[in-house]
Amino acid sequence: MTAKDMEELTMKEEKINLEAMRHSTAHVMAAAVGKIFKSVKYGVGPTIENGFYYDFDLPNQISLEDLPKIEKVMKEIIQKDFPLNCFRLPVEDALKLMKEKEQPYKVELIEDLARQGEKEVSFYQVEDFVDLCKGPHVERAGQIGPFKLLSVAGAYWKGSEKNPMLQRIYGTAWKNEKELQDYLNYLEEAKERDHRKIGKELGLFVFSDLVGKGLPLFTAKGAAIRRELERFVVEEETKRSYQHVITPPLAKVELYKISGHYPYYKDTMYPPMKVDEEELILRPMTCPHHFMLYKSQPRSYKELPLKYAELAHQFRYEKSGELTGLMRVRLFCLADAHIFATQEQVKEVIKDVLDLIDYVSSVLGLKKGEDYRYRLSLGDRQDTQKYYKNDKAWDKAENTLREVLKEVKAPFFEASGEAAFYGPKIDIQMKNVLGKEETAFTVQYDFVQPERFDLTYVDPEGKEKRPVVIHRSSIGAIERVMAFLIEKYKGAFPLWLSPIQVALIPITDKQLPYAQNVKGQLSDHFWQRGYNLRQITFGQNETMQEKIRQAQLQKIPYMLILGGREEEAGTVSVRTRKGENLGAMKIDEFAARLSKEIEEKK
Amino acid sequence: MTAKDMEELTMKEEKINLEAMRHSTAHVMAAAVGKIFKSVKYGVGPTIENGFYYDFDLPNQISLEDLPKIEKVMKEIIQKDFPLNCFRLPVEDALKLMKEKEQPYKVELIEDLARQGEKEVSFYQVEDFVDLCKGPHVERAGQIGPFKLLSVAGAYWKGSEKNPMLQRIYGTAWKNEKELQDYLNYLEEAKERDHRKIGKELGLFVFSDLVGKGLPLFTAKGAAIRRELERFVVEEETKRSYQHVITPPLAKVELYKISGHYPYYKDTMYPPMKVDEEELILRPMTCPHHFMLYKSQPRSYKELPLKYAELAHQFRYEKSGELTGLMRVRLFCLADAHIFATQEQVKEVIKDVLDLIDYVSSVLGLKKGEDYRYRLSLGDRQDTQKYYKNDKAWDKAENTLREVLKEVKAPFFEASGEAAFYGPKIDIQMKNVLGKEETAFTVQYDFVQPERFDLTYVDPEGKEKRPVVIHRSSIGAIERVMAFLIEKYKGAFPLWLSPIQVALIPITDKQLPYAQNVKGQLSDHFWQRGYNLRQITFGQNETMQEKIRQAQLQKIPYMLILGGREEEAGTVSVRTRKGENLGAMKIDEFAARLSKEIEEKK
Repeated sequence: MTAKDMEELTMKEEKINLEAMRHSTAHVMAAAVGKIFKSVKYGVGPTIENGFYYDFDLPNQISLEDLPKIEKVMKEIIQKDFPLNCFRLPVEDALKLMKEKEQPYKVELIEDLARQGEKEVSFYQVEDFVDLCKGPHVERAGQIGPFKLLSVAGAYWKGSEKNPMLQRIYGTAWKNEKELQDYLNYLEEAKERDHRKIGKELGLFVFSDLVGKGLPLFTAKGAAIRRELERFVVEEETKRSYQHVITPPLAKVELYKISGHYPYYKDTMYPPMKVDEEELILRPMTCPHHFMLYKSQPRSYKELPLKYAELAHQFRYEKSGELTGLMRVRLFCLADAHIFATQEQVKEVIKDVLDLIDYVSSVLGLKKGEDYRYRLSLGDRQDTQKYYKNDKAWDKAENTLREVLKEVKAPFFEASGEAAFYGPKIDIQMKNVLGKEETAFTVQYDFVQPERFDLTYVDPEGKEKRPVVIHRSSIGAIERVMAFLIEKYKGAFPLWLSPIQVALIPITDKQLPYAQNVKGQLSDHFWQRGYNLRQITFGQNETMQEKIRQAQLQKIPYMLILGGREEEAGTVSVRTRKGENLGAMKIDEFAARLSKEIEEKK
Repeated sequence: MTAKDMEELTMKEEKINLEAMRHSTAHVMAAAVGKIFKSVKYGVGPTIENGFYYDFDLPNQISLEDLPKIEKVMKEIIQKDFPLNCFRLPVEDALKLMKEKEQPYKVELIEDLARQGEKEVSFYQVEDFVDLCKGPHVERAGQIGPFKLLSVAGAYWKGSEKNPMLQRIYGTAWKNEKELQDYLNYLEEAKERDHRKIGKELGLFVFSDLVGKGLPLFTAKGAAIRRELERFVVEEETKRSYQHVITPPLAKVELYKISGHYPYYKDTMYPPMKVDEEELILRPMTCPHHFMLYKSQPRSYKELPLKYAELAHQFRYEKSGELTGLMRVRLFCLADAHIFATQEQVKEVIKDVLDLIDYVSSVLGLKKGEDYRYRLSLGDRQDTQKYYKNDKAWDKAENTLREVLKEVKAPFFEASGEAAFYGPKIDIQMKNVLGKEETAFTVQYDFVQPERFDLTYVDPEGKEKRPVVIHRSSIGAIERVMAFLIEKYKGAFPLWLSPIQVALIPITDKQLPYAQNVKGQLSDHFWQRGYNLRQITFGQNETMQEKIRQAQLQKIPYMLILGGREEEAGTVSVRTRKGENLGAMKIDEFAARLSKEIEEKK
């Protein structure tokens, strides 16, 4: 066993201990709730990431104010250091016990277990509280570390809307005070950075009940960020020989039947619309549209690799419970692309894609290996329901992707059963600003759809051949990137993305004309370069301090303080949102500084 | 009677005479068809703009090859100068006559007339051909001017798909040979300029049966034009203090019920989609979305006029027979805006809008008064079904628009019953390149929807007031503008809109590396200025003449001929698509020329 193996084993053990401790905390919480609310019926109480919850059926509503009371009783139980004892009962006795204790949900669970063939079930007891449970647990309540109850929410029994709604209390528990405090700080930070909160404060987007759920409306400020991102992607991709096309965000249902999306994604698609003799549907994916462009004329090997990119509007029916600000929406704009290549070109094509992703990510301030890594998502040869059956093609595709990742020395790991139905993929696993890893977007190897759509090209010998299609995104969904960037920068965007870039702050109303003059000069300077500088003048009726405070609240990168002295000298006194005082500058000098910073996207 | 009145009267008379003559030509054509195809059943044969048609029910298919044969027989009838005699018959006798002649469609028409209360109907006879007809006609066939049969198409009897399909022959007739020839040239020119034809030749867009009717897919080349237009609009409007927002192209049906669109536009909207508890529908208009943004926070008079603009995707269900290339589509992107203003601001706001329209039009090469004029479209106080009832508000709004048009000395005329349901409007009546006038887009005065959505602002005294909303477009639907520009320029776009701007033409393959070098230098030059220059290299295996020919076919503005001499001198020999030879230039010099021309949008 190497030192590294030892270390890994220790970490694993520690994780198991932490899980057991959190699970015991959930039991202690259940015991405490039982002491306070006599009539409680217990649901389930598992551990989750960083903590635990327990579901209760209670006649009265638990509020946040009740949590300290529950915590107090929990602490008493822990202080008395009751043991957590395990005992086993035959199913009949177990049922009898739970019926006696008037716990219908537990009875239902035991019946479920019996139906699955269990003869005996295990219980854990702490003080008077007996719970159906597999364990493991810590031995004594005194071993429970510092904990905190966090929130209350409604949750359907067994997750089904047909069942009663229970009350779920969430909590967290840690090895020591420091870890607990770190985690609570983390939660506080997450709340602070929440893009929904910042988006509202900065007025970037709104939702409307009359428009519908998951359908954000971007204000001019939000749209400014969005447009900068979109143009950045279009220009960078065009420079890299992508053909940026525009196709309609809907098509006949038939198109998605041919592509194979319809059976797989039907549940997350909007319902079809009957128009004349046609049945149209909002698109969940862009690939079939690009295939139609590809097929609109005969193709030669000379055109390959042919790269269609699009800022593609896509509609997905996400469950209303899963909609989250800009993170999860029902309509999004994906920086999408489909590359048609020969077998021989595939590796080079994927390397180019990874290079683009690295470049785009670096511009957004993300480091490979640190902020994101790759996941090689493989198929499952056994699962012919989920995956297209062609072992040889799968092997080849998976090996190609693996080789590319090795050749470019990319940090990656492998995961089985995570592929698309039409082939394996490389997932870009992005850590959010709080360290949580999620799939941001993907590079997919598709050997199925070229077949279904009978895509061909003519090779140098004049023979018809089948291209491979690589599906990829360079930046993911624009809405999601926005959510990510809002949280990353806490709303203090780099200059090029700032919805308002310059605040003009006349010290008194006397300098209002000068402020207009400066604004005009700056506008002209940038307009001549084809750019609209985003400026705001903080006018009348407020003190300079108040104007500065408002500009800071709006996270405007530069503030120009304009007093009598500046007017006389034809200068501007520059302050940054961080509070730096850059002193007086000529307007040209300031404009040059802005230009450079905008261009560098820093 | 003034000279002008006299002139107008003469023109009117001439028009009547021309109509009568064309109508007679249709009868003569029907007579000729009857001579050639004995078993013909006659439908109807009216005049249309610039000509006439007649519908025939025939067992065999008429082809273009048949038209000269028919023309020949027509000329014989005209040469023999048969009179066109009118006679009247009681309905019963008329029915008897048409039954004898085995003309079931005519029988049906007479029955329709009888049902409408007619006791007597009139017929016209030329040679043996007797036709149910109101006239008027010329007196003798010899008075028919030079004519030509143009095309054959299918047409349902009475326009209904439930009825038999007839064959329709179109023709045209004129006073003299010159006018006929002018018209035929015009048709030829229209065919040449047809944006569908040029769009195909230049590969700008395609349609796909699997995607659906009226839903164009833009290739990279078409998308390049579209993007240039869209950015131009966004930047120009942003500069003029419009807030460019982005809102979703669908919403709950309820939103359009409140706005009042749903009852009025229901038939041209896509069907609703049920998603969870929500009923969503693709939007036919953007206004209610912008109202939701307006209502997302309280508004003060200080914010007015508040101008929301958007490149708004809108869906309209156009009948499949009315779909025409990019001109009439089922999804389009409207350069839309809604301006919220106080009553006092309205005139100034509309003047600004007209100024913007003039500017944008001038950039697109259109002259006010020549290429377009204004139509003041008024309501109808009697038609309370179509128009919101509020005589005072209508008077006020109409007067405001009239005053503005007079104050800015705009060329305009008035038209009753052409307003929107919520108020009067100024229509920008654009002449297409062939002189036909159509409404390109509008400026609308809306006093109804602010009421329906309870839009308010707080005035300086702290009182709630109702704003007026001005709906306007600056450039119309991007797809339509594209169609218009393709026809205007016959595909030879100004440099800034050209899908490919520069063609690199190495004289032999030896100069291929130099071509790549030049391309790279030009790309870098523009990339540093945030612009992707659109270039193409005409490579291998073809003669220089062939490469030049291809570049000209693609209407590429500049061709760089690259031979040994150019390579040695580090220059490029510049030719234009018009065939001008601009001689050798240093690369920087050429780049500067391009920059200037792109910037000037000429």
